Amino acid sequence: MPCQNFDYCFNNNSDELRGDSRKKIAIVGGGNWGSAIACVVGKTVKAQDDVFQPIVSMWCRDSRKFGDTTPSIAETINATHENPKYLPGRRIPSNVIATSSLLDACESAHILILVVPHQGIPQICSELRGNLRDDAHAVSLTKGISSTSENDVIRMQLISEDIEKALGVECSVLMGANLAGEVADGKFCEATIGCKSLENGEELKMLFNTPNFRIRVTTDYEAVELCGALKNIVACAAGFADGLGWAYNVKSAIIRLGLLETKKFVEHFYPSSHHTYFESCGVADLITTCYGGRNRKVAEAFIKSDKPLHIVEQELLKGQSAQGPPTAQDVFEMLEIHEITEKFPIFTSVHKIFTGEHGEQELYDSLRNHPEYD
Amino acid sequence: MPCQNFDYCFNNNSDELRGDSRKKIAIVGGGNWGSAIACVVGKTVKAQDDVFQPIVSMWCRDSRKFGDTTPSIAETINATHENPKYLPGRRIPSNVIATSSLLDACESAHILILVVPHQGIPQICSELRGNLRDDAHAVSLTKGISSTSENDVIRMQLISEDIEKALGVECSVLMGANLAGEVADGKFCEATIGCKSLENGEELKMLFNTPNFRIRVTTDYEAVELCGALKNIVACAAGFADGLGWAYNVKSAIIRLGLLETKKFVEHFYPSSHHTYFESCGVADLITTCYGGRNRKVAEAFIKSDKPLHIVEQELLKGQSAQGPPTAQDVFEMLEIHEITEKFPIFTSVHKIFTGEHGEQELYDSLRNHPEYD
Repeated sequence: MPCQNFDYCFNNNSDELRGDSRKKIAIVGGGNWGSAIACVVGKTVKAQDDVFQPIVSMWCRDSRKFGDTTPSIAETINATHENPKYLPGRRIPSNVIATSSLLDACESAHILILVVPHQGIPQICSELRGNLRDDAHAVSLTKGISSTSENDVIRMQLISEDIEKALGVECSVLMGANLAGEVADGKFCEATIGCKSLENGEELKMLFNTPNFRIRVTTDYEAVELCGALKNIVACAAGFADGLGWAYNVKSAIIRLGLLETKKFVEHFYPSSHHTYFESCGVADLITTCYGGRNRKVAEAFIKSDKPLHIVEQELLKGQSAQGPPTAQDVFEMLEIHEITEKFPIFTSVHKIFTGEHGEQELYDSLRNHPEYD
Repeated sequence: MPCQNFDYCFNNNSDELRGDSRKKIAIVGGGNWGSAIACVVGKTVKAQDDVFQPIVSMWCRDSRKFGDTTPSIAETINATHENPKYLPGRRIPSNVIATSSLLDACESAHILILVVPHQGIPQICSELRGNLRDDAHAVSLTKGISSTSENDVIRMQLISEDIEKALGVECSVLMGANLAGEVADGKFCEATIGCKSLENGEELKMLFNTPNFRIRVTTDYEAVELCGALKNIVACAAGFADGLGWAYNVKSAIIRLGLLETKKFVEHFYPSSHHTYFESCGVADLITTCYGGRNRKVAEAFIKSDKPLHIVEQELLKGQSAQGPPTAQDVFEMLEIHEITEKFPIFTSVHKIFTGEHGEQELYDSLRNHPEYD
């Protein structure tokens, strides 16, 4: 029987259509930054429940050993709405439902937020491959660089490109001056989305943007992603400077010269990039990370002690990792292959301090004799 | 009788010529930064005594009241080679000879280094006018903005332009990430010279450059000078943020948005400027000043107390001045005349916090609603 009440039918039908088209969000990663971004996204989807499904799923790795009967991180988050291991004291909204099953979290998601350490990406992609919606897209918050080999020639590759190739979905990036605890607390900050298609970029802006978490979108995704990755190397240099008792002027010079090495790196590998160093992912993220980030902290402690890096990390980060040292190694290897290490003395010296080949004097000389002064 | 020994005569003659052409240096200003730059220049002229005369004269204002029989600052520096009032604990080289007479210091100088607060420039220029060598040139280390009136229209003017008009000599600028104490200690840092003629710029680079004080030269002098002036306003915003207990992400956003307001200001008033924000005078000086400078310190104390600004300055700076508040006022007046205050919410809010018209909320809103997010 046809509906007699046109308004009711129209709205009902419209609601159904709207219900079908609402996007489901999955967060892949339950660490410090993943938990902070859950605080943001849990709220934005509820405030826009005509666009997004209000339940956000969040995959957290179950790192318990066999026989361990304590609750998993996912169980703890669902019971307490807090991640006491990686983001203690901050409330994760109750519409964020955590799970230890990667497929359960992701298979019906329209948007995947990937926020795991670089090292975890290959296994996650291999588990997800072939198990996602055809119309899904992703955004990577992961920092690092990758590489690919073609006819024995090793080429730079972005982590977002790794993800796209592995999953067959478009992958944007979100980077910015975002210390996780401050973001979770709802304090004002900014971030940059680097996207391939502006359609996905604008949808991601809707998902992340709040009055206190201000998002700008650019299609210069290579520079956005590399700024996010390379700033961790510069932050290690800043941490060394702090540990060695150097001063404000030196640290500012490190940040400036580090930004210029970042720019040169992007220009070398992605000459068509139009650069966005004045965005939050550029100069702002670099400053935050060089003053308040974990890479700075680890590097400062490393250069002041005789302990190996993994011990310093264990003591300071309680299970989280610092991406600066492995990124410095990956970048150094890429610079060596392309025979351009001498153009990047800070990146090079940071790597060599971690391997023990460089000391204080070499780092100092990498500044004083920087090619920028030629 | 003609000289029988050609080599001797030639060399003797050459020596004489060289002796005549050696440049005499005068430093105008005996404050914190003037004393620190005396530490640098005192050494560089000695190391290059074929180019520069080894005696540097340094004018220090005699601020004693009538009847005060304590030694003047100039007398103290000449007796102890230290400026205990403004740069205690650092040795000023003994070839720097201080004097309370401006004319004695400057009238035979080839290069004048002007390093006094903005407020002191008019009187100094009026005393020096007509009393300098015809071939002299100057370099200003003074931070601030000026204005000029033509047919009742008020126009922006640089302080270096004020100096050029008043003295009839070319005036370059030197700006950079240079906390004075660290420069005096010989710690590594960088600076930028903005010059009109590269000939004078390169001569100034010889005068200031050392293995630890690295100078780069550009002809983009408007941007260099304005970066040096406007960073003090941004540093006040950073100080307010510190005083209000805001966090790293916010402070990085302030620095980034402040840099963008600086860029916009330069583009508005000097559209032909080719911009040098990646130089030390740009991003590096901004970071140093927002973390370690006196404007940050004064602003932090001001917003945490009920005391008027001049009391806070007296308590913290011991007779030195903070250029941020007067520069914020001068800039605000210029923005009002040109009806563009709304494009510069941070500059505007900093001024209005000092006048009591704005509080914490307005500053916060100047960030969250910044036109950069439009």
